[in-house]
Amino acid sequence: MYSERVSRLTGSLIREILALTQQPGVISFAGGLPAAEVMPALDFTGVPQVLRQYGTTEGEPALRERIAADLKALGVGAAPERVLITAGSQQGIDLVAKLFIDPGTPVALEAPSYLAAIQSFRFFGARFLPLALSEQGIDPDELRRLIAHDRPAFIYLIPNFQNPAGYSYARKVREEIARVLDESGVPLVEDEPYRELMYDPVDRTPIASLLKHAPWIYYGSFSKTGLPGLRIGFTAASADLHPLLVRIKQSTDLHTNRVGQWWAGQFLANPDYPAHLERLRSRYRAQRDIMAAALARHFSDIGDWNVPAGGLFFWVKLRQLCDTRALLTAALARNVAFMPGEPFYTDQDAPRGVLRLNFSHASAEQIERGIATLAQVIRSTPALDQAAAT
Amino acid sequence: MYSERVSRLTGSLIREILALTQQPGVISFAGGLPAAEVMPALDFTGVPQVLRQYGTTEGEPALRERIAADLKALGVGAAPERVLITAGSQQGIDLVAKLFIDPGTPVALEAPSYLAAIQSFRFFGARFLPLALSEQGIDPDELRRLIAHDRPAFIYLIPNFQNPAGYSYARKVREEIARVLDESGVPLVEDEPYRELMYDPVDRTPIASLLKHAPWIYYGSFSKTGLPGLRIGFTAASADLHPLLVRIKQSTDLHTNRVGQWWAGQFLANPDYPAHLERLRSRYRAQRDIMAAALARHFSDIGDWNVPAGGLFFWVKLRQLCDTRALLTAALARNVAFMPGEPFYTDQDAPRGVLRLNFSHASAEQIERGIATLAQVIRSTPALDQAAAT
Repeated sequence: MYSERVSRLTGSLIREILALTQQPGVISFAGGLPAAEVMPALDFTGVPQVLRQYGTTEGEPALRERIAADLKALGVGAAPERVLITAGSQQGIDLVAKLFIDPGTPVALEAPSYLAAIQSFRFFGARFLPLALSEQGIDPDELRRLIAHDRPAFIYLIPNFQNPAGYSYARKVREEIARVLDESGVPLVEDEPYRELMYDPVDRTPIASLLKHAPWIYYGSFSKTGLPGLRIGFTAASADLHPLLVRIKQSTDLHTNRVGQWWAGQFLANPDYPAHLERLRSRYRAQRDIMAAALARHFSDIGDWNVPAGGLFFWVKLRQLCDTRALLTAALARNVAFMPGEPFYTDQDAPRGVLRLNFSHASAEQIERGIATLAQVIRSTPALDQAAAT
Repeated sequence: MYSERVSRLTGSLIREILALTQQPGVISFAGGLPAAEVMPALDFTGVPQVLRQYGTTEGEPALRERIAADLKALGVGAAPERVLITAGSQQGIDLVAKLFIDPGTPVALEAPSYLAAIQSFRFFGARFLPLALSEQGIDPDELRRLIAHDRPAFIYLIPNFQNPAGYSYARKVREEIARVLDESGVPLVEDEPYRELMYDPVDRTPIASLLKHAPWIYYGSFSKTGLPGLRIGFTAASADLHPLLVRIKQSTDLHTNRVGQWWAGQFLANPDYPAHLERLRSRYRAQRDIMAAALARHFSDIGDWNVPAGGLFFWVKLRQLCDTRALLTAALARNVAFMPGEPFYTDQDAPRGVLRLNFSHASAEQIERGIATLAQVIRSTPALDQAAAT
């Protein structure tokens, strides 16, 4: 009765967790929500009445030009004509799935990777080819072997402040990945929502800027630096892929809402924009440090983690095997929420006992109290029997 | 390299025509654009700052409640919990395609039907089962035979002021269609963008309101009465289908932009709303009458048409066989644009020589001048040889 893909619809976990975490009194480390205190204001003074009418699928020219100029400064060679404004970067994921994925299409990605991308690619029928992720990024040699053995339709990567792991790729890994993709012609899909949320200096060179031949799509978003409620993101793409994305976008929703695009254009052009980014970084850096200190105090004998140089998340590996979904139930009973780590892996033999902890949304006091509570809950949760767990 | 569906991507015709018609000096009867003179103002005074944050996939509660109340008054039994706010009704089409269509899935629809729905359903691989459309609607007996012979996954209908034909279904046809769908369990997808644009009284009972058992999805839009640039529409659906639409929407773009939703809620709650609709109807009724008079003056010996009781279009059948895409090229050379009729049919033996003419966007003077020019162009275009055309 329904399409075959409906049998692969698994969109409920995030929704259920976010619904639970919106109950009053819950300290939530679950989502990736910006802090209201450092959000820019919703101000539509001077919005042009011409935006009432239908717009173009590609998006508002002024916004596209500004984005293209910013990308050019990063070495990503997209003229304004190759920028497409999307309904958040989630829509970029949907467009890529439509462009590439039939049932059984091989898709390479990091293990772990972004949950909502996994869900969307799976919905369209992707067969996943996971690549182990370390603090330096994926292993380019492993990628080369993977391509030789089972060529993916594309590779999906989040090289900066990766979601969920928080890692940032080393420069030489970026270069080597670009070389492998140029040699093989496998398209790169590079997702960059956290680019501006850097707290310690690391290399952030877009891999798309290092490509010479391979097709590529680069996503950006204003949901982390601007206002997520407006749903404004963008893609830039190589000359072969951009026209296909535009035509797919047209049949998806005609075009992105124009007042949100106007707001994003004003936001980027505001002389206060660099100072706004500095306030955002300063706030989130402080929250990251508070969570790092709380973890050091309460988790040092039960888990391992890196302090991320940017982004929104700690990725904590517990030392005891544990079903983190059961742990979540116990934590919610104590009014603390987090995101279980298992769904960020595409294969069944995902590590057991990994948590993603967001530090941007809770207050300093909530972070300290929530991490202490979470450690208590973990200590009182029986470990999985290792044999039973495998 | 790309997905199989990319080979069926045919999104360019509307885009190309709309691009041509935006050149200065062109009188356009091609699109379905509201008239700027009767659009409500873009006014965000008092927009709540809480809308900056991520919202729920389902949409803003106040807007969903108002829509549910309006639907209840029409007999469409959808509680607010079964209303989903979408990025225009085009997104409703995309969600339905994802829900139902695999390559080869049979889809029943009117011949002719809405071009952008045809394109989206085709992209997902629909095998079309067209039903001839008359002034009374489709033939319920033909629908019954079609279902017995080749059961469609759903039927897509635009019963009020149909796009492109302008027809409105007779009451007894609506009732009979509901009976056939209830008997067979075939889901109804009912698209209602023009509901409020009624110029002469006709029955507008939603077929969804007449169903007792069959699953259904009903689309509405604020693009024709409100502001298309905000991209706000909605679906209401039966209890089995609504949760699936929500989960598919989540993986498509997380949620619809919140400021557009807020604007739509203010628009519907404004005490001036009924008077606004009356102004809109009054303006478009006058434009329809101007186009009807111009057609009577210039087309009486070259074409046949009905005067539509509502909506935005005349559907003119030329008496001579003619490739209307070639005719469009000739008309554009004289600075007049229209929409060729052939792409509104899914089968190859579509009638030759049908034009869709929009009357909402051009001025009265442009309508008179454009119709006169178009008649001249048609008279000077050689007829297709009937044998060669088939």
